[in-house]
Amino acid sequence: MKIRTFPIPSEEAEAHLRRLAGRARVLFDGEAARVAGRALSEIRRGGDRALARWRARYDGVTGPPRAVRRPGRVSAEFRRAFEQSLSRVTLFHSRQQTPAARVLTAGSVIEERVFPLDSVGVYIPGGQAVYVSTALMTILPARLAGVPRIAVATPPPAYDSSPELRYALGKLGVTEVYRMGGAHAIAALAVGTGAVPRVACIVGPGNRFVAAAKRLVSGLVRIDGLSGPTEVAVYADGAADAECVAADLLAQAEHDRDAAAVLVTTSAPLAERVEKAITRRLVGLETRDRARAALSRYGAIAIAKSPREAVRFLEAFAPEHLGIQTRKSLEDSRLFRRAGAVFVGRPTSEVFGDYVAGTNHVLPTNGTARFSSALSVRDFVKRMSVVSLSRRDAERLAPHAEVWARIEGLPAHAAAARLRRSAGS
Amino acid sequence: MKIRTFPIPSEEAEAHLRRLAGRARVLFDGEAARVAGRALSEIRRGGDRALARWRARYDGVTGPPRAVRRPGRVSAEFRRAFEQSLSRVTLFHSRQQTPAARVLTAGSVIEERVFPLDSVGVYIPGGQAVYVSTALMTILPARLAGVPRIAVATPPPAYDSSPELRYALGKLGVTEVYRMGGAHAIAALAVGTGAVPRVACIVGPGNRFVAAAKRLVSGLVRIDGLSGPTEVAVYADGAADAECVAADLLAQAEHDRDAAAVLVTTSAPLAERVEKAITRRLVGLETRDRARAALSRYGAIAIAKSPREAVRFLEAFAPEHLGIQTRKSLEDSRLFRRAGAVFVGRPTSEVFGDYVAGTNHVLPTNGTARFSSALSVRDFVKRMSVVSLSRRDAERLAPHAEVWARIEGLPAHAAAARLRRSAGS
Repeated sequence: MKIRTFPIPSEEAEAHLRRLAGRARVLFDGEAARVAGRALSEIRRGGDRALARWRARYDGVTGPPRAVRRPGRVSAEFRRAFEQSLSRVTLFHSRQQTPAARVLTAGSVIEERVFPLDSVGVYIPGGQAVYVSTALMTILPARLAGVPRIAVATPPPAYDSSPELRYALGKLGVTEVYRMGGAHAIAALAVGTGAVPRVACIVGPGNRFVAAAKRLVSGLVRIDGLSGPTEVAVYADGAADAECVAADLLAQAEHDRDAAAVLVTTSAPLAERVEKAITRRLVGLETRDRARAALSRYGAIAIAKSPREAVRFLEAFAPEHLGIQTRKSLEDSRLFRRAGAVFVGRPTSEVFGDYVAGTNHVLPTNGTARFSSALSVRDFVKRMSVVSLSRRDAERLAPHAEVWARIEGLPAHAAAARLRRSAGS
Repeated sequence: MKIRTFPIPSEEAEAHLRRLAGRARVLFDGEAARVAGRALSEIRRGGDRALARWRARYDGVTGPPRAVRRPGRVSAEFRRAFEQSLSRVTLFHSRQQTPAARVLTAGSVIEERVFPLDSVGVYIPGGQAVYVSTALMTILPARLAGVPRIAVATPPPAYDSSPELRYALGKLGVTEVYRMGGAHAIAALAVGTGAVPRVACIVGPGNRFVAAAKRLVSGLVRIDGLSGPTEVAVYADGAADAECVAADLLAQAEHDRDAAAVLVTTSAPLAERVEKAITRRLVGLETRDRARAALSRYGAIAIAKSPREAVRFLEAFAPEHLGIQTRKSLEDSRLFRRAGAVFVGRPTSEVFGDYVAGTNHVLPTNGTARFSSALSVRDFVKRMSVVSLSRRDAERLAPHAEVWARIEGLPAHAAAARLRRSAGS
C-alpha cells in the first residue's frame, strides 16, 4: 500500500507531528467525562445499589460483583510462554530498587521510610481481545513491591471466556476479582462500596470511559498514565533489514485503527523496500483491515536529510516504542531520551517487549514519554518522611526557622520554633 | 477556647474523620473547573493574545509576561536562614537516589536510562503571604535532578513586593520568571504560547483555580499532587510537653481557615493541659482569627482508649504532618505508615520541617498520604527502557512471543517474532 511519505525537515513533517499529537482525544472527550462523572457521583452516593444498576445496564449481569474463583485450563505451550515471561519480567523488575534517603547530622536522624501501597486495583479490559499479558505487566510489579491486596476488575465476558486470564490471575496469586467493566468499575474501586472495598491505586488500560473515569478519580487514588492509542517509530539506515522493519511497523498497526507506525530513515532505498515489504505482508494478514486503517491515518515514512534531523523529529514525536536498526544501533540509541522504550538492533523486535523481554509494556503514549516512564515497582510504593532532631540541632535551627516564619507572616510558627530554643526535657 | 473533644473509638470520631475528608473540595469544585477549562481552551487556541486578555483581567497587568530581572535586597539574618535551609535541604535531597535497573542475560542488555525532565514550571502563589520557602522546596529538587530549564510563574504582586522571593530565585539560578497567576498561568505553561514556552511538568501549590487547572492539564504535563488545606495531628501521651503540643497545633491552624489540627492522646490530663495552653497562646497572636476558625471547624482533641485505637484513627486520617510526643517517640513512629511526614520527639517541631530540617514541605494532604509522598528529586526525572537482545536470546524468546501473540489475536506480532527465530545479519 501507498504510505504517506515526506522529507524531514518539511512542512509535511510538522503537520504529521500535529496529526499524531491530535490523537490525545482522552483529554478532550466531554461525553466520556460526563458518563464517568455520573458513574462516580451515583456510586459515591448509592454504593452497591448504584453499582448494581450500572452493571445491569452496561455489563449485562446481576448478582454480586465478586467473581467465584474458577480455574483456567490452558495449553502446555501457553504455560511455558507464561513461565518464561514471568521469569524475565520478575528478573528485570526486581532490580527496580526503591532506596530511601537517610541523613545523620548533629545527632538528628532525617530519613524516608518506604512502604508498599496497601491496595491496588487492576483494570483488565475486554474488547476485541483479552490482553492477558497486561495482567502480568500490571500485577507483577505490584506484587514485587509487596502490595498485600490486589483487586482485579474486568468485564464479565473477559473473565468468563479467557481461561488464560484466569490461569494468569491464579499464578499471580490474585483471588479478588470483580466482574465489572467501564467507568463504573473505576468509580467503585476508587470510592469503595460495601461489596468492593476501595483501593489506593488504580492501574491498567481501558476504553475512553475507563480513561475518563481514571482521570476523574486521580486525586482520590493514584493512577498510572492515561494510555492513548499505541505507537511505534523505527529509526533505520540503509543497513536495516526491510522485512524486520516492516514486520515491526505492522505489529503496531494491527492493534487499533488509531495506532501509529512511523518509519524514519536516512535511506530512500530502504524506505522503498519497507513499503514494498509492508504491502506484501498485508496480504492474508487477518488483522489487515485495522492495520491498513491505522497506516493510512497515522502511518508515515519520513526520509531525513541527516541523522540529526531524524533525531529531532523523533524526539518531538516522543513515541511509546522506538526501534533502532542502524549500523551502530546501540551507539545511536544514546541520541534519544524521549521514548517510552527503545528496541535496539535487528534481533530486538518491539514484540519481545510486549511479552517476554523483561521490561514493562505499560508505557507512556502520545508524547507523554517527555515526562513519564514505563510502569515499575516504584509506582506501587509510597514514602513517609521522618524527622527526629536532637535537642542541640533543634536549638541551632530554631532561630533560622523564626526568621523564615516572620518573613512569611506566621507568628505561631515562630513561637513553636522559639519554644525549642531553650533547654527542655 | 473550647475544642471539640471525643473519645476513640466513637461515632463522633468517625464523624470527624468524615468532616476532615470532606475538605477535599478541589475534586468537586465545578466552578473552578469551568474557569480553568475556559482558560485552557482559550489559551490553546489564542496563544499570547488570549493570555494577555486573562492577565489584564485577573492579574491587572499588561505587557509581556516575562519579568525583567530585579535583584532582591534582604536582611543578613534572612540570608543566613536561607543558606541554612539551602544546605540542609540539599543535604537530604541529594541522598534521593534514582538508580536504574539493569540486567545482562544471555548476551542481552535490558536496562533503564534515567534523564532529568527537560523543563519544569513552578507556580508560586501570592495571596495572604508569599511563601518563599515553597520556592526553595520546589526548585531545589528540580535543580538537583538536573533539570536544565526551570520557569517560575507567580502573581505580579508576589514578585514585585517580595525581595526575599527575588533573592531566593536568584540564588536558585532561576532567570525565567513570568508575572502571571491563576488558572491561565497553569494553562500557558502546559500548552505553551509564543512568549511562554511549554514545560514538561508543573509543580507548586495554588488557589482553587490553580488546582483545577493543574488537574485539567495533568495528562499534558506531569503535575505534583493537588495540595488541599494543610493539616497536622499530634500523637501524645502523658509525658508530652503541653506547651510544645499546643504550639505545634497552633502553627498549623494559623495557616488557613480550612486547616486541620488534631490532638490524639491516651492521656485525659494532657488533653486538658493542651487545651488550656492553646487558649492562653491564642491571646495576642496576630493570626488568631484564622487559627480560631480552623480550630473550631476542623480542630479536635481525641482521647484514645488505647494506643492501638489512636493508631487506627490516625492511619485513617493519614495526615500531612504527624507529630509524635510520647515516652518512646521513635519506637512509636514505627506504628505509622500513612502520614506525609512524621516529626519525632519534643525538640522536633513540625515547623522545622517547613523550613530547615532538610525534608520537603510539599506533602500529600487530605488522605492522599495513603498513596503519595513528599516532593522529591525523583519527581523530576524520567526513565526510558532500553532492550538490546542478542541473536541467541531473541531466537530463544521468539516461540514464546508467538504463543502469546496467538492467544491475544495478533498475527502480525507473531510474524515479527517469527522473523527473529532464524539466523539473521
